[in-house]
Amino acid sequence: MTTLRMPAEWERHSATVMIFPERPGSWCNGGAAAKKAFAEIVKAVSAGERVYVAVSPSAYEEAKNAFAREIESGKVELWNYACNDSWARDTAPTFVYSDGKLSGVDWSFNAWGGDYNGLYRDYAADDAFAGFCCSRLSLGHIDAKPFVLEGGSVHSNGAGVLITTEECLLSRGRNPSLTKSEIELGLKKFLGAERVIWLPWGVEDDETDGHVDNICAFCSENSVLLGWGGTKSQLKRCKSNLKVLKKAKIKVIKLPFPAKPVRFTAEELSGFTYEEGEITRSAEDNLAASYVNFYICNAGVIVPQFGDKNDRKAVRILSKAFRGKKIIPIYSRDIIVGGGNIHCLTQQIPE
Amino acid sequence: MTTLRMPAEWERHSATVMIFPERPGSWCNGGAAAKKAFAEIVKAVSAGERVYVAVSPSAYEEAKNAFAREIESGKVELWNYACNDSWARDTAPTFVYSDGKLSGVDWSFNAWGGDYNGLYRDYAADDAFAGFCCSRLSLGHIDAKPFVLEGGSVHSNGAGVLITTEECLLSRGRNPSLTKSEIELGLKKFLGAERVIWLPWGVEDDETDGHVDNICAFCSENSVLLGWGGTKSQLKRCKSNLKVLKKAKIKVIKLPFPAKPVRFTAEELSGFTYEEGEITRSAEDNLAASYVNFYICNAGVIVPQFGDKNDRKAVRILSKAFRGKKIIPIYSRDIIVGGGNIHCLTQQIPE
Repeated sequence: MTTLRMPAEWERHSATVMIFPERPGSWCNGGAAAKKAFAEIVKAVSAGERVYVAVSPSAYEEAKNAFAREIESGKVELWNYACNDSWARDTAPTFVYSDGKLSGVDWSFNAWGGDYNGLYRDYAADDAFAGFCCSRLSLGHIDAKPFVLEGGSVHSNGAGVLITTEECLLSRGRNPSLTKSEIELGLKKFLGAERVIWLPWGVEDDETDGHVDNICAFCSENSVLLGWGGTKSQLKRCKSNLKVLKKAKIKVIKLPFPAKPVRFTAEELSGFTYEEGEITRSAEDNLAASYVNFYICNAGVIVPQFGDKNDRKAVRILSKAFRGKKIIPIYSRDIIVGGGNIHCLTQQIPE
Repeated sequence: MTTLRMPAEWERHSATVMIFPERPGSWCNGGAAAKKAFAEIVKAVSAGERVYVAVSPSAYEEAKNAFAREIESGKVELWNYACNDSWARDTAPTFVYSDGKLSGVDWSFNAWGGDYNGLYRDYAADDAFAGFCCSRLSLGHIDAKPFVLEGGSVHSNGAGVLITTEECLLSRGRNPSLTKSEIELGLKKFLGAERVIWLPWGVEDDETDGHVDNICAFCSENSVLLGWGGTKSQLKRCKSNLKVLKKAKIKVIKLPFPAKPVRFTAEELSGFTYEEGEITRSAEDNLAASYVNFYICNAGVIVPQFGDKNDRKAVRILSKAFRGKKIIPIYSRDIIVGGGNIHCLTQQIPE
C-alpha cells in the first residue's frame, strides 16, 4: 500500500506557488491596489524560498517588470499559464509525500460550488492548473478527480491529523453524491489522513462556504489558532468549533477577528467587470476578513493586516504561537477585497 | 474490467478541438498566412460539427473577430486557454468510450521528445491541455501520465486495431524505460487496443519522429492509405511499411507525396522568433508535406494541398477511398510551414 503524508505548512518549503491577480470580477480597477499588496507578499515569501508566479500571456510583461529584480536573482520564476483567478491555495495541487516521493494531488475544482453556488462559470483553466503545476515541476501527479476539494478547506498537522469544516466539505456544491464518511475516506485516500477533525463552521459570509483556513489553523502538532469573536452568530459558530476541538484534545489559542467589519468602498464597487454568470459584489457584503489566513513560509509567518485596532493584537498572539519564527505583518485589505487573503493566494511546495 | 474503445475518425463527431496558431517560433510573421489557412479549416469543419478553438487571452479578441459569424451561430466556441503551440491532435485528449462513457485520455506530452529531442522546452501548458479539455467538456478523465504519447502517433480502425510507428513510439525521447511490449501494453490499457500494427517508419524529416498520421491512415476497418514515393530513402521506408501491412492482411491504397519538396522561403525564415531552447528553422530543412495528413470530419474529408502537381491525384485517390464523403481540398502550405498539417491541427470528439 502507498504511504501518503501531507506535511504541515511549517515544514521547510522548496518553493511557493502564486498566481498574478488579473480577473476583472475579483480585482477591481485593473487590480492596481491588489497587485501592490501581491508584490509585497511575493517579495516577503521570496526572502526565504523561490516563488513561482503563474501569469497569463497578456500580463506577462507587466509581471516581468513588477518582479524584475527577483527574477534576475532567481527568487521569482514566472510561469506562462492563464488561470481564471488567483487562489493558488485552491487551484494548485495539494502537495504530499507518496511513498516518500513529492507529488501533487489534483482535485476537481469547480469555483467553490459549480452550478449550485460557484463564483464563476468558466473555471476550466483553474481546474487544469494543478495538472500544469505537476508537469511544470516534474513531480508525481495524483489524480483525485472527480473528487471536488480546495486546498483552503483542509489543514494538516503533518502527522496524520487534518482539520476541515462540515460547512464547506458537506456543502451541496462540492460532492453531493457522497456521504460524510465517504468524503472522509477521500481525505484518507488522497492525503493520507489518519484522523479528521470536523469543525462545524467557517467564517460567516465567506464565499468559500467556510474554508477552514479562514477560521482555524494548526500552529503545532497538537495546537491550533482559532478565529474568535465577531457578530453574535459568528461567536456561536466559534463556540461550536471550540467544543469539537476540546473533545479532540487539541490545545486552542484564540485569535480575534478584526474589530470593524470590512466592506467595499464605492470606488471599488464601480471598478469590477463581471463575466456572464459570475457572482457580483454589493455595498452590503461583509468581507470575510480574518487573521487566521496567515501563511507560514521559510521566511516567517505572514499575517494579514486591515488597519484595524486588532491588527497588533493578532501579531502579538502569533508571535507567541510561533516562537522563533519572524512575524511579517502585511497590509492586505486590497487582497480581501478580491475574496480571500494571504493564505488563499499561496500554496507551499515542501522540500 | 473496463471496456475501452477508440472510435475511428470517420465515426460521427460531436465536435472538433483546435488551437489558434500563435507560437512565434512555429508561425512566422505573426502567423498572418497560417491564420488564414487555419480559418479556412475551421470554417470547413464547422459546416458539419461544432469547433472549439482554444486561444490565449492575448489573442482572444483577434480570434473573436476572425470567427465572429461562426461564434454567433454557435458553430465555433472559443476557449480561454493559452497553449504553447497549436497541435490539438497531440495535446488534446485522445477520446475513447470507457464502459460506453465518452472519456478523454490524458497522456504526458513532452513536445515530441523532452530533453532528448523535444522541439521546445516549456511545454507545461500543452501538457495540461488534455486535462483542461476534459474539464471544459465535463467528460471522464483517464490519467495516462507519465506515459508519453501524442494523438498523431496512433490511428484506430474503431474495432480494436491500432496502427503506429516504431520510429516514433520507440524513440528515446518518449518512454525510454519501457520496452516495445510494455508500450504496446500501454496502448491496450488506455485505448482498448486488441491488436497493434507496428509500421517501422514515418516520413523522413518529420519533426515528430515519424508520426503515423503523416504516413498511413485507415480509410475503412481493413484498409489504409499509405504514403508512397519520395526520395530513395523515403521509398525504402514505404516498402518496409507495405511489407508489414501485407503481413497483417490490411488492404493498402498508395497515396503519393507531393512531387516537389516543400522548403521555407527567405521571408518565412526571417519571420520566426524563438524561445530559449527551441529548435530553429533553416533553409535546408525539408518540410514533411504529406497528403496522408487529411482530416475526416462530419462535413467531409479535408485534404492538404501544396500547389503541387500531385494535389489533384491525391484528391482523386481519396474520393475513391471515401466513397460518399465530400472531399474538401484546402491549400495548407502555410500550415506545414508550422511543422504539421490539417490532421495535426484537429482532434475529433466522437458523438
